[in-house]
Amino acid sequence: MTTPALPSPPDGAPDYSDPYGADPAFPLHLRGKIEVRPTVRVRDNAGLALAYTPGVGRVSQAIALDESLSWQYTWRSNAILIVTDGTAVLGLGDIGPVAALPVMEGKSLLFKEFGGIDCVPICLATKDVDEIVETVSRIAPAYGGINLEDISAPRCFEIERRLQERLDIPVFHDDQHGTAVVVTAALTNAAALTGRPLSELSVVISGAGAAGVAITDMLLAAGVGDIAVCDRTGVLEGSRADLTDVKRKVAERTNTGGRSGHLFGALRGADVFIGVSGGTVAQDVVESMAPAPIVFSLANPVPEIHPDVAHAAGAAVVATGRSDFPNQINNVLAFPGIFRGALDAGATRITESMKLAAAQAIAGLVSDRLAPDRIVPDPFDPRLAATVSEAVAQAARSAGVVRPSA
Amino acid sequence: MTTPALPSPPDGAPDYSDPYGADPAFPLHLRGKIEVRPTVRVRDNAGLALAYTPGVGRVSQAIALDESLSWQYTWRSNAILIVTDGTAVLGLGDIGPVAALPVMEGKSLLFKEFGGIDCVPICLATKDVDEIVETVSRIAPAYGGINLEDISAPRCFEIERRLQERLDIPVFHDDQHGTAVVVTAALTNAAALTGRPLSELSVVISGAGAAGVAITDMLLAAGVGDIAVCDRTGVLEGSRADLTDVKRKVAERTNTGGRSGHLFGALRGADVFIGVSGGTVAQDVVESMAPAPIVFSLANPVPEIHPDVAHAAGAAVVATGRSDFPNQINNVLAFPGIFRGALDAGATRITESMKLAAAQAIAGLVSDRLAPDRIVPDPFDPRLAATVSEAVAQAARSAGVVRPSA
Repeated sequence: MTTPALPSPPDGAPDYSDPYGADPAFPLHLRGKIEVRPTVRVRDNAGLALAYTPGVGRVSQAIALDESLSWQYTWRSNAILIVTDGTAVLGLGDIGPVAALPVMEGKSLLFKEFGGIDCVPICLATKDVDEIVETVSRIAPAYGGINLEDISAPRCFEIERRLQERLDIPVFHDDQHGTAVVVTAALTNAAALTGRPLSELSVVISGAGAAGVAITDMLLAAGVGDIAVCDRTGVLEGSRADLTDVKRKVAERTNTGGRSGHLFGALRGADVFIGVSGGTVAQDVVESMAPAPIVFSLANPVPEIHPDVAHAAGAAVVATGRSDFPNQINNVLAFPGIFRGALDAGATRITESMKLAAAQAIAGLVSDRLAPDRIVPDPFDPRLAATVSEAVAQAARSAGVVRPSA
Repeated sequence: MTTPALPSPPDGAPDYSDPYGADPAFPLHLRGKIEVRPTVRVRDNAGLALAYTPGVGRVSQAIALDESLSWQYTWRSNAILIVTDGTAVLGLGDIGPVAALPVMEGKSLLFKEFGGIDCVPICLATKDVDEIVETVSRIAPAYGGINLEDISAPRCFEIERRLQERLDIPVFHDDQHGTAVVVTAALTNAAALTGRPLSELSVVISGAGAAGVAITDMLLAAGVGDIAVCDRTGVLEGSRADLTDVKRKVAERTNTGGRSGHLFGALRGADVFIGVSGGTVAQDVVESMAPAPIVFSLANPVPEIHPDVAHAAGAAVVATGRSDFPNQINNVLAFPGIFRGALDAGATRITESMKLAAAQAIAGLVSDRLAPDRIVPDPFDPRLAATVSEAVAQAARSAGVVRPSA
């Protein structure tokens, strides 16, 4: 088939008098960053008769008789939905579903570039938990996985749980688990670099939202001994009457060190600070931590403490969420390989063991040449996605969470 | 950025011992027929900082302040959803949403190849009209149009009407309007070829489903004088007590010739037969029509009457739904150009005048060299999509159904 000339742009689209043209991000985003295109070419009526009627009817008929064939003869085995309601977009907060679309397109771009995965953005015109669960459940049949993105806490916890109960494909909230996997990989290497076993580390996490809760669970699963989680009020602990269900459950399984009070006090003598909530931490607070502490100052775009200040305060290892400092804690290290591995294995869910396998695979890529400025691999390390996906697929098979037909 | 090696296929995917391998449609469908991929390349951290954080945040922030910018800085101006519930797939009937996916992928392929449009398949796990309307309304924000596909009548009428009321983007049920546009184009040329004005034609339509009703409305809008519509019982007419609301309304605006009884009787003396319901029409029935009748025998894969038999019965022009006979009535002549034109104009709906403009543009492509075996253009005619889209965009602007920002 002759590919037609590219359609003329919509009225007023590529507008070079564009007031935003001075910011290179805007021309780059003109007409968006992703497309849907054929993987087979149809050049004539004979091709049309195979890719469309009548040939396609025979494929549909076969799938109607044996639905498991859909994993072979459709894109479903390689396609996922990225779903947001626009309530917690980057650092911008609740900007709505349409304004969230550029971020979803960016994530789709990263899924394809790093994981070879076809990722469709869904921006929901509802914030109601029941409606979100219903809607995503109804549109799932054509897809092999669901990546939840930028949905505010605590709604994100219930939405993920209920969708995973309803669907037999992986449901993964990247803001929780992607971040937790990369933090676990980074802390594993930082602990090794500074000669401390995870089990002996005392960790203080600032932030009890999606990321903070997920990081807590994963570090506990990874064997970290003592974790205290702080919200704006202070350490989550049983005596507090103001805790949500989620925070109360966190309090029940953390703080074996019996810390209390505000973040700054809790950090006194701690080995590790993990900030995922914004706010600021002063140099003297880091100086009050244990000798040669590990500081993950992940707030974006403004870290809780500037890396230079943290080092001046004696920090042995510093990580941030920014690409312009060493040790960027970037979810792109995790999510493409995790979904690639889950899809390759025909996984029906993503288990703790699969996330731990991903963290270990990420950490392992640099474990032979650890340095204070190299505790995680570069996102462009060509080994990354394949190494993570193989580890995740193997963990899925070991856990027995794969489709019968896979 | 280095594009990663293609992921290994899911376990058990490309299976060359595949029992379906003998049918070339199956190997062609392995792993599906479409993909989602970036239109911008990200090769390093600098690119990542523009296409993803922090650069993407500035684009999202701008859209949060002025949502109309989403038509410039996201894929929304060129992306549509193709939505089915799998209840009326090709000739296969209600085969369910998963089995419908190969057909939706095929349609997406045709939208891109012929119209340059990014088309995302949504296969719904519900047949409930309210749930379908709710679900599609909630997932619409990231898209510029909705193509409804293979949804059974009469549900398809209500679903399209309610979605168009709810949404300010075009909602188009191709099984109705795509077919009606191509039939109108074909009948316009067949009438010209045989020297009869549309206003003097007596037309009998066999089938009162999605296609039959839409064809009736469009031919009336195009100025056809007398149309009788038949279902299995016979001609739709006011005296019948067994009519659904939709059929009763059709009866009210058709059959000025006062026909009654079964299809075969109704065809006596008629100038045009349009079959969209299956069943069979014998040679003597065609012989009972007016001299040199026009026969559109569109049932697929088995036409109501074989073209050779229709010609033997004296038919002047014969069309079918099949690619292996002349004059294929194929929706692909219409839907890519109709949506291309609607998106280019920033249309908020697709009006009767836009559909008529599409029909006239399709007819016009061959009107200078009409022949009994050439009343519609070839689907691969390179002028097709551009000619139809320009006519549709112009009609949208004339009708004033375009976004203020467009």
